[in-house]
Amino acid sequence: MTPNTVEKTPVTLLGLGAMGTALARAWLAAGHPLTVWNRTPARAEALAAEGARVAGSAAGAVAANTLVVVCLLDDASVEEALAGTDLTGRDLVNLTTSTPAQARARAAWARERGARYLDGGIMAVPPMIGVPEAGGYVFYSGSPELFERHRETLGVPAGTTYVGEDAGFAALHDVALLSAMYGMFAGAAHAFALIRKEDIDPGALAPLLADWLVAMAPAVHQTADHLRSGDYTRGVVSSLAMQVAGTPTFLDTAEQQGVSPELLSPYFELMRRRLAEGSGEEDLTGVIDLLVR
Amino acid sequence: MTPNTVEKTPVTLLGLGAMGTALARAWLAAGHPLTVWNRTPARAEALAAEGARVAGSAAGAVAANTLVVVCLLDDASVEEALAGTDLTGRDLVNLTTSTPAQARARAAWARERGARYLDGGIMAVPPMIGVPEAGGYVFYSGSPELFERHRETLGVPAGTTYVGEDAGFAALHDVALLSAMYGMFAGAAHAFALIRKEDIDPGALAPLLADWLVAMAPAVHQTADHLRSGDYTRGVVSSLAMQVAGTPTFLDTAEQQGVSPELLSPYFELMRRRLAEGSGEEDLTGVIDLLVR
Ligand SMILES: NC(=O)c1ccc[n+]([C@@H]2O[C@H](COP(=O)([O-])OP(=O)(O)OC[C@H]3O[C@@H](n4cnc5c(N)ncnc54)[C@H](OP(=O)(O)O)[C@@H]3O)[C@@H](O)[C@H]2O)c1
Ligand SMILES: NC(=O)c1ccc[n+]([C@@H]2O[C@H](COP(=O)([O-])OP(=O)(O)OC[C@H]3O[C@@H](n4cnc5c(N)ncnc54)[C@H](OP(=O)(O)O)[C@@H]3O)[C@@H](O)[C@H]2O)c1
Repeated sequence: MTPNTVEKTPVTLLGLGAMGTALARAWLAAGHPLTVWNRTPARAEALAAEGARVAGSAAGAVAANTLVVVCLLDDASVEEALAGTDLTGRDLVNLTTSTPAQARARAAWARERGARYLDGGIMAVPPMIGVPEAGGYVFYSGSPELFERHRETLGVPAGTTYVGEDAGFAALHDVALLSAMYGMFAGAAHAFALIRKEDIDPGALAPLLADWLVAMAPAVHQTADHLRSGDYTRGVVSSLAMQVAGTPTFLDTAEQQGVSPELLSPYFELMRRRLAEGSGEEDLTGVIDLLVR
Repeated sequence: MTPNTVEKTPVTLLGLGAMGTALARAWLAAGHPLTVWNRTPARAEALAAEGARVAGSAAGAVAANTLVVVCLLDDASVEEALAGTDLTGRDLVNLTTSTPAQARARAAWARERGARYLDGGIMAVPPMIGVPEAGGYVFYSGSPELFERHRETLGVPAGTTYVGEDAGFAALHDVALLSAMYGMFAGAAHAFALIRKEDIDPGALAPLLADWLVAMAPAVHQTADHLRSGDYTRGVVSSLAMQVAGTPTFLDTAEQQGVSPELLSPYFELMRRRLAEGSGEEDLTGVIDLLVR
């Protein structure tokens, strides 16, 4: 067999929103036979012209192929779209953003209906789909057999990272990384707010800020080492005591610049609480313990 | 003149805490004649053995050289240490962490006493000092002549980044970058908290988290572009409306994992407020406007 004659796995895709449409184009471009369905049929028209088979119903789309990928708005829309379909013997891959609990429940629901189940969490925006150098990828969790069987096909739109048999783990990893990103964005928002009234070009601050965040991101490795060992003092360079002593400079600067401290204070408050527990020799890892009930 | 016969600028350094000691070693290693003073004399002993001249008083240390570098605990300790010294004709470089207002006041105070003034904000921890490949640097602001005159000497312990004549700008840049870093650390703390009760190795999450944060840090360039142009909708891929719609997934996941939302909620709340103002087509830049009074 030469690459040209290899049969590409046929894919059924439910959902042609911004993300679904990008996924569809990637599989079409790679030569996978593709059957699509969307609640609002008009969104399938352009793809039909590009070679996709358009099913008249979700049930028809699910019946067309073993591999069924779903990328809808939310878990409720998955329930609704799949309600009248026969999932027996299907390989259901759900790329709809959901919580870990929703993903676990959906996995059980799919198994009851005779389907294998893999959950996905997409770490990319639509313009990164089908563009390997953009670095986007999808977390997968659930059936390891299903992941192995379709690894190549699933790898067409974006990279794949399998994170475990627990169907909720893809969603959990997805939410964990995006939560951390929002924290970083909150910090960056505070930084830009601080210079808002000054004669400082935000375009000059941005590269300094980006480089600094990139340089500091690897600090999470020490955090992981602390959590694994249970010893939060290992290799500490800036002690919690020293850092808490420094917080007035941050809060006073915010005050001087007319910037609300609301994005900074909650973390500083946890640092203070941890210090009050007598953990001044640690760095910041102990804050994590205060977050978990 | 060959490099060996070049006279290196003599430096006076007040303050031999963790940071001051690291600075002292870097200048000694580079062959700069160094006069040091510390409130607690014992901390100067090791440096004396390494070639530093130890002054018996701050006044004596200041009298010894034109270039006087100060690295003390805080602005109050600078006031105290320099109280009985004659600053006339000195090039005073203050590397003590302070707020922009403190730095500006200290600059005026120094000028009244006949000194030129440069303020610094150190973006490094002591182990990075004198180790160029560690990437640490110091923000400088204040007298441009003083910066140019001592650029080479100041560049010995760490890189130098001059950010303007306003003496407060070094402190402002310092605080801005560190504030953003604390935001990122807060986000990472939330991420680690989310997996705390699961069978997920923090050491496996860490590289995924670090890579993701590194990949997302350049988003600050778009923020800067928005702030410069005043158009917060330019090039937006994930709209504020879409992102606010996604926040329940983050909060529900935190709830499911037994994690307090206190580090995430304040940012989400600002996103919601901005959306309520009718800015759904923007991304997240508008949050900054809500922070500034
Ligand atoms: N876009 C991104 O940047 C991005 C990034 C990562 C992950 N994701 C995830 O990918 C998934 C899809 O996102 P998207 O950007 O494609 O969203 P979108 O553009 O808003 O599209 C939503 C899709 O869901 C369908 N839908 C909504 N409710 C439905 C229902 N009750 N029954 C059947 N179909 C329904 C819509 O059909 P109609 O056309 O009929 O309305 C449409 O196909 C979401 O879970 C999202 O979180 C998106
Ligand atoms: N260490 C870091 O990671 C780091 C990073 C960036 C910036 N910085 C900044 O660098 C500066 C020094 O930090 P450090 O780590 O060296 O602190 P440190 O180890 O706590 O040392 C503090 C220094 O200040 C002196 N001092 C305190 N109060 C004084 C007073 N009233 N009069 C005279 N001297 C006084 C101390 O003298 P004694 O020995 O007599 O107590 C000591 O030399 C601070 O502004 C800090 O924010 C530090």
